[in-house]
Amino acid sequence: MLYSKDKQEQLFLGIDGGGSKCKAIIMTADNQILGSGISGPGNPLHGFEQATDSIVKSAYLALIDAGLADTPLTELIAGVGLAGVNLPQQFEQMSAWQHPFKAMFLATDLLVACLGAHQGQDGAVMITGTGSCGFSYVCGQEFIIGAHGFPHGDKGSGGWFGLQAVEQVLLSLDGFKPVSVLSQSLMDKLDCRTSTDIVEAVAGKPAAFYAGLANLVFDAAEAGDALALAIVHEGGAYISKVARALWQKNPPAMSIIGGLSTRLMPWLDQEIRERLIAPIGPPEVGSVLFARQQLALLSQRNRQSISVNQ
Amino acid sequence: MLYSKDKQEQLFLGIDGGGSKCKAIIMTADNQILGSGISGPGNPLHGFEQATDSIVKSAYLALIDAGLADTPLTELIAGVGLAGVNLPQQFEQMSAWQHPFKAMFLATDLLVACLGAHQGQDGAVMITGTGSCGFSYVCGQEFIIGAHGFPHGDKGSGGWFGLQAVEQVLLSLDGFKPVSVLSQSLMDKLDCRTSTDIVEAVAGKPAAFYAGLANLVFDAAEAGDALALAIVHEGGAYISKVARALWQKNPPAMSIIGGLSTRLMPWLDQEIRERLIAPIGPPEVGSVLFARQQLALLSQRNRQSISVNQ
Repeated sequence: MLYSKDKQEQLFLGIDGGGSKCKAIIMTADNQILGSGISGPGNPLHGFEQATDSIVKSAYLALIDAGLADTPLTELIAGVGLAGVNLPQQFEQMSAWQHPFKAMFLATDLLVACLGAHQGQDGAVMITGTGSCGFSYVCGQEFIIGAHGFPHGDKGSGGWFGLQAVEQVLLSLDGFKPVSVLSQSLMDKLDCRTSTDIVEAVAGKPAAFYAGLANLVFDAAEAGDALALAIVHEGGAYISKVARALWQKNPPAMSIIGGLSTRLMPWLDQEIRERLIAPIGPPEVGSVLFARQQLALLSQRNRQSISVNQ
Repeated sequence: MLYSKDKQEQLFLGIDGGGSKCKAIIMTADNQILGSGISGPGNPLHGFEQATDSIVKSAYLALIDAGLADTPLTELIAGVGLAGVNLPQQFEQMSAWQHPFKAMFLATDLLVACLGAHQGQDGAVMITGTGSCGFSYVCGQEFIIGAHGFPHGDKGSGGWFGLQAVEQVLLSLDGFKPVSVLSQSLMDKLDCRTSTDIVEAVAGKPAAFYAGLANLVFDAAEAGDALALAIVHEGGAYISKVARALWQKNPPAMSIIGGLSTRLMPWLDQEIRERLIAPIGPPEVGSVLFARQQLALLSQRNRQSISVNQ
């Protein structure tokens, strides 16, 4: 069944805004994805203006991709899942945004990821991309573990793996750690010849930069490098502990998602690996599901209110 | 012997510029310190303009403090020791600065700290303030260990201790580490009530912010807290290893300096503690000694050149 503009069917916008990019989809009421778009960072913690710009831009790109360039944003009901809005200040600021949509329902990136992975049902997710955390949504109760941020947290994330690599390689070049093949691969990747070059290359860099180095650690670990193995074992053990903490909330299902999940998977404890299921949909679909759940709740409340008034 | 303006004696400016502040002294040829001044960050890695502004400002403050407000900067011979100029790009940029002094001799903060601590003689220093590193200067040879920067390095520094505290407290609040008194003292210090508050309070903060939390770790360790003890033992063991690496260069003497040295000292290995001597002078005095050594070398070369020409 193809979407027809003439039907005047309600269209939904699903947003998944993270620290490095913002993804948008246009979805019909019967779950057809008509188009998608990607723009810049969507985490309001690193700039409100940039986050709202990214949301609007990705929405336009998704409309264009759907062949609906003429459709105004005011016709879209938006489900917006954003990193950073677990913090009260960011949630309030973003809720107060004079958004251009017909309606906007705001949720954390964690909730929409979980709803997307489990098709709107209860469940749990571990998210390992640039950052890391665990999240469960069971009987309306949210539970977050991790999501501490860079550089002091987000163990087992891309940012953490890259940071560990740089730290351990520099200690190794100083003679405080065993010689590692990671040193050479890191220097090649950063176009460096000395330890001083590395210090210069990484100075002041954000989590996303370090996340770009994470693959080097997995490559070296898979080649048997001791330093890299120690890092992936520590990261894998931590994410396994996150999974165990989440299971205590009795989610019906659990998935691991995010850019690092494929590489990290082999390093999780076997009993954890065996219980994880593949996510059904991406976070931006979860955002649409969230918007619809909220609409249904509103409509239910209105009916109750009408019923009381009668 | 008091300094007299009438003698037209050469005055020296000594600068010690680090990541959080820039210190200046005005010193006479016979080592009298006439005045001192402190301004903002002096590390060009975090901004060339800010670094040069801080140098000039601290120099003016030192002149005012010396009662020499009328003395122009063009009369001063400046020894300038700066963090960050161990990196070639920063060294070149700072050397090319159109400085306002009669002459400027540029060195790393490490070299001037070492010269200051050992009165211009060979020796070694371990510097533990916001950052950390080891440095030796023996027979004209410099050797650096550490100085990797934040957040990926500078183990045993104030920034590292604070970062460890935040990381471990958040893991502890998530149930992944034992309960620690550090959690409460950190929350009190940051005016936080929850783990989420801490995440919000530390987001995007620089090394200097984390260094401001280091004392909490030592306080908790001294009170017997297991989590804090693990951190101070790791930091102390690393700085002890730095000391052993430096002794291999056969420096006649070694000192530990920087804002964290007093608190860190009890946690170093006993054999290391017993071999350390108190620093004789501060880095800004080392900067003046460096300028004089460079002047002496220039004058020697000129004499040789004149002798060859005759």
